[in-house]
Amino acid sequence: MGKTSEIDLHHIKLTDSFWLDYQRLVRDVVLPYQWEALNDRIADAEPSHAIENFRLAAGCSQGEFYGMVFQDSDVAKWLEAVAWMLCQQPDPQLEHTADETIELIAAAQQPDGYLNTYFTVKAPKQRWTNLAECHELYCAGHMIEAGVAYYRATGKTRLLEVVCALADHIDEVFGPGPQQLHGYPGHPEIELALMELYDVTDRQRYLSLARYFVEQRGTEPHFYDLEYEHRGRTSYWQNYGAAWMVKDKSYSQAHKPIALQTTAVGHAVRFVYLLAGVAHLACISGDEDMRRACHCLWDDMTQRQMYITGGIGAQSHGEAFTSDYDLPNDTAYTESCASIGLMMFARRMLQMETDGQYADVMERALYNTVLAGMALDGKHFFYVNPLEVHPGAIKCNHIFDHIKPVRQQWFGCACCPPNIARLLGSLGNYIYTRSEETLFVNLYIGSEVTLLVGEHSLTVCQTGNYPWDDTVNITVTCPSATSFTLALRLPGWCPEPQAILNGEPVDMTPRRGYVYFTRTWSEGDNIQLILPMPVRRVRSNPLVRQNLGKVALQRGPLVYCLEQADNGDNLHQLSLSAGNNFRLLAGEGVLAGKTLIQAPGEGVSVTDALQQPLYDYDGEPPRRRQCSLLFIPYFCWANRGEGEMRVWIAET
Amino acid sequence: MGKTSEIDLHHIKLTDSFWLDYQRLVRDVVLPYQWEALNDRIADAEPSHAIENFRLAAGCSQGEFYGMVFQDSDVAKWLEAVAWMLCQQPDPQLEHTADETIELIAAAQQPDGYLNTYFTVKAPKQRWTNLAECHELYCAGHMIEAGVAYYRATGKTRLLEVVCALADHIDEVFGPGPQQLHGYPGHPEIELALMELYDVTDRQRYLSLARYFVEQRGTEPHFYDLEYEHRGRTSYWQNYGAAWMVKDKSYSQAHKPIALQTTAVGHAVRFVYLLAGVAHLACISGDEDMRRACHCLWDDMTQRQMYITGGIGAQSHGEAFTSDYDLPNDTAYTESCASIGLMMFARRMLQMETDGQYADVMERALYNTVLAGMALDGKHFFYVNPLEVHPGAIKCNHIFDHIKPVRQQWFGCACCPPNIARLLGSLGNYIYTRSEETLFVNLYIGSEVTLLVGEHSLTVCQTGNYPWDDTVNITVTCPSATSFTLALRLPGWCPEPQAILNGEPVDMTPRRGYVYFTRTWSEGDNIQLILPMPVRRVRSNPLVRQNLGKVALQRGPLVYCLEQADNGDNLHQLSLSAGNNFRLLAGEGVLAGKTLIQAPGEGVSVTDALQQPLYDYDGEPPRRRQCSLLFIPYFCWANRGEGEMRVWIAET
Repeated sequence: MGKTSEIDLHHIKLTDSFWLDYQRLVRDVVLPYQWEALNDRIADAEPSHAIENFRLAAGCSQGEFYGMVFQDSDVAKWLEAVAWMLCQQPDPQLEHTADETIELIAAAQQPDGYLNTYFTVKAPKQRWTNLAECHELYCAGHMIEAGVAYYRATGKTRLLEVVCALADHIDEVFGPGPQQLHGYPGHPEIELALMELYDVTDRQRYLSLARYFVEQRGTEPHFYDLEYEHRGRTSYWQNYGAAWMVKDKSYSQAHKPIALQTTAVGHAVRFVYLLAGVAHLACISGDEDMRRACHCLWDDMTQRQMYITGGIGAQSHGEAFTSDYDLPNDTAYTESCASIGLMMFARRMLQMETDGQYADVMERALYNTVLAGMALDGKHFFYVNPLEVHPGAIKCNHIFDHIKPVRQQWFGCACCPPNIARLLGSLGNYIYTRSEETLFVNLYIGSEVTLLVGEHSLTVCQTGNYPWDDTVNITVTCPSATSFTLALRLPGWCPEPQAILNGEPVDMTPRRGYVYFTRTWSEGDNIQLILPMPVRRVRSNPLVRQNLGKVALQRGPLVYCLEQADNGDNLHQLSLSAGNNFRLLAGEGVLAGKTLIQAPGEGVSVTDALQQPLYDYDGEPPRRRQCSLLFIPYFCWANRGEGEMRVWIAET
Repeated sequence: MGKTSEIDLHHIKLTDSFWLDYQRLVRDVVLPYQWEALNDRIADAEPSHAIENFRLAAGCSQGEFYGMVFQDSDVAKWLEAVAWMLCQQPDPQLEHTADETIELIAAAQQPDGYLNTYFTVKAPKQRWTNLAECHELYCAGHMIEAGVAYYRATGKTRLLEVVCALADHIDEVFGPGPQQLHGYPGHPEIELALMELYDVTDRQRYLSLARYFVEQRGTEPHFYDLEYEHRGRTSYWQNYGAAWMVKDKSYSQAHKPIALQTTAVGHAVRFVYLLAGVAHLACISGDEDMRRACHCLWDDMTQRQMYITGGIGAQSHGEAFTSDYDLPNDTAYTESCASIGLMMFARRMLQMETDGQYADVMERALYNTVLAGMALDGKHFFYVNPLEVHPGAIKCNHIFDHIKPVRQQWFGCACCPPNIARLLGSLGNYIYTRSEETLFVNLYIGSEVTLLVGEHSLTVCQTGNYPWDDTVNITVTCPSATSFTLALRLPGWCPEPQAILNGEPVDMTPRRGYVYFTRTWSEGDNIQLILPMPVRRVRSNPLVRQNLGKVALQRGPLVYCLEQADNGDNLHQLSLSAGNNFRLLAGEGVLAGKTLIQAPGEGVSVTDALQQPLYDYDGEPPRRRQCSLLFIPYFCWANRGEGEMRVWIAET
């Protein structure tokens, strides 16, 4: 498969009702709300101070830095989200606010190009002295991403110039030269950002710098140790013991060179951000070792450490991976940001080589964990996305300390809300990839995309009611007959896809998850793609001890769950009956427009369990009663107050 | 039921092969080993410094205090264990070492009676300023227990005098008077110790002081807050945040007066130590509120928060209870000391009122968690006793940080090993209770007990091969015919107990778990008690979500488990077949002398699970294969190296 690239978001127009609703939420609710939050104007939320920090760095305000060492990144992510929204629809007022913010950022930049409010305001002498712990390059990466996005969205170069100057400065500080630092970020992010910057500027130094960061990582003598000694063994993070982030090098995937890594370990967000950059680099550079590492780590993550919801990072401690096939549902961490990063990694893999598995995972993460990260009102967020919740137990048992039974307004560490916003804003980037002669449709999201094929303009329009309905219509509009290939992904969850091209059934034999339509297209050519969406029982690999004997329901890309609101408490007592006697129901109230699933099941028939002994000898298993189970899409959970929730349930 | 008391350990001679083996281990291995440990002479273990601390306090050595604020208690528990062992068998050398240690303790006592090496050596001005956090009264309690035990064992009064002076000093410091502290211990222990001291000295002031500590607890204004303010808001323990032990009053059961408490909460060891003292006090004083609180809290703990192994305290955080019916098996804390405390609480309940449920729980804790706390070699210990272990997962997933897959040599916080030693040494105290006219046999442990009934001497001798064999022989020896009642406990696990009195079957209708034999006993009267020990399937209350659909096996008082050593890895894939097709096997090697259980089961028939996808649509449940399961007694687990273990397994 050849390498592919993305399409300028200006050439993609979203028309999808499901996602336009979300983009509207982002524009009308999330971005204004987050702007207020960044400016500390939300009454009951933890203060952010992020904009004020830039004012301090710019010298236009007096006071102390406040917030996380990576507080700047919240502003960068907000700006990036704004940029992507401006691609969809002009908004002069929003653009004006963004331009002002960019001027503030520019004013906060130091003469040498350095840009970071924590170090500028609070610790100017400690610049670049603690790469392992202090997120300097991470914040730079997010700012670069914002600069690239804003340039792509508006054509304005102000922020792009700022981040180029920042990247140039970094390129002077880091590298193999004797006067340079031989380091790399403790929190990867800049690698993927530099690749983006290279994409828009075509400047080799950014590609080289990205490669340097990737190849230098995990080499010996270890940079974390060297800088730790050099700065006199001081440490920023102490929560798991002195200098733990320096010592536990696998936490940041720096325990060995990337080309030698074979297992997804450490902080999940770092892992997928890093690998997104590595995959992008491998795609551009053709480096075979990098490509092999991407494959191997992708396989380990998705085939042994990923939840059915596309969540990754099974533990709260270090927000990290645990070990193969260890997927606890009730203590899962599965951070929203990690699934966003997973989508970013998948998207780069898809650019490197067209294979439906990458889009399958991307879709799984998007429609389940990423969406679940935000409430249906757009104002409340989950940082953590467990697959099973017992509100009574989480109040008392501290192994659940990271679990919230309902979404929160904002966070002191506010990485997830703006990350969801920028993902939703940039959704168009994930729908299509193209090569010279082929347009690949990765996601079925109603949209119009206009391409230049040779000298011909060609518009592909997809409509449908995904993820609820099974039919996607794809219509080609071109002024003159054009030879081109359209490749449609056949989702892994779909048992028997069919397609009808201008009224004629088509052979559906896929190549690596895509079916190819190569022809000379004429005005009005139409493909009706039918992706049957039966409710499917999913089972885990029997090595997953938490799920053996249980099933989850999936319909289309959506994983379903049981909630107490519909099924009463003690969800663990419910089991799903055999057979495929599923009935689809239309949701009501806050769930209006969602498709729910009713299924026959059984419950435990004990009315006086509180009076029964804790342990019973030689009795029969508890008697079971027939009951009706109501499943809702996982992404909709916890929108009706606090209650139990569960994805995996027993089979009768 | 009338109140009962214990029998002087000198009048009980242990003859039981199962327990004599353990007592021999304690005498020959545990006590010498621990003595070396207390003196810092174990090469690879964490230093204790406990004896050296007493030398420092006595002024016969120079240096700094080292160890936990409650380090003294390890010496006290060791001395108590020595005392109980001396009851069984004279040992002049051991007694000499103990006497020397007692002299050292006496020398460390201050002129006013105060005795605590931490405060004497390290912080003499801070005496009695931090009751909530600093274990001063806890250490005093253990020393009092040691003094009482040593007096009971040897008749020597030296340590008893020391602890009486200590108790007198405490009685001056604490109380309702205007010059007194209106406080009580953050870690209960002294309450039960003062009751013991009252038992041997008959001095009312100790009873009154115990009552004061019990009744003052949890009253407002809260003493923890008052002393916290008074000492300028300093805090000793910061691990869960500043002054958390002061703020979280339920952690130490001080959130409300004991008479108003209805739920087992907080640190499990504190809870059972406290309630042991309260039950003893209620028994002596007849206080109805206290008795009701004991009942209510006992019920909550044993009927909603106790593991089948008699383990309590479901979480590592705070070594604490969680909530009703929340009994995770793989993250369980279930500290060895907590089950020892549970036995102490049960023993006092049994003295307050004869009811088989107390002995049932006492036996459950003894034969399962307490025994599991020590390796079969007597040299390695578990602090934590989970019911399910996955060595691969615990290495990577930090929710298992407190779990060790094999027993450790010694601990920095070494509360458990000496606690097991003193429990095993004082086992005789748990076997029998008596009232004026009745001897109650609570535990079936081969022994001879000699009583004075009126002016007649009467010896009851029980023999058997408990917990492996079902027959207990009880023979009465008395020089002259004596009217008396023998009450034999019918264990809750036993389906159809039978008894034959001098060859004649007897009516077995029990009263609250005991069958009563009231008669005029003649020389050689014999009761053959048959306690059939079929292998029993135990199910949890269906409100326990971790165990629904699973069973555990129990035979006699022993809970069984599967180990990887016998059944391979992936124990979660095994299930037990229906029916009662159990076969008893004799253990071999390190398990020689233990009865094992073989049972037909099923395993998952997947030979290439590593090649299978993580999630599978619409497949069949994994095929299962017949297999033979081998269960070993839970208390024997982890004596054959590292491996998986599991108590609750699925039913086919």
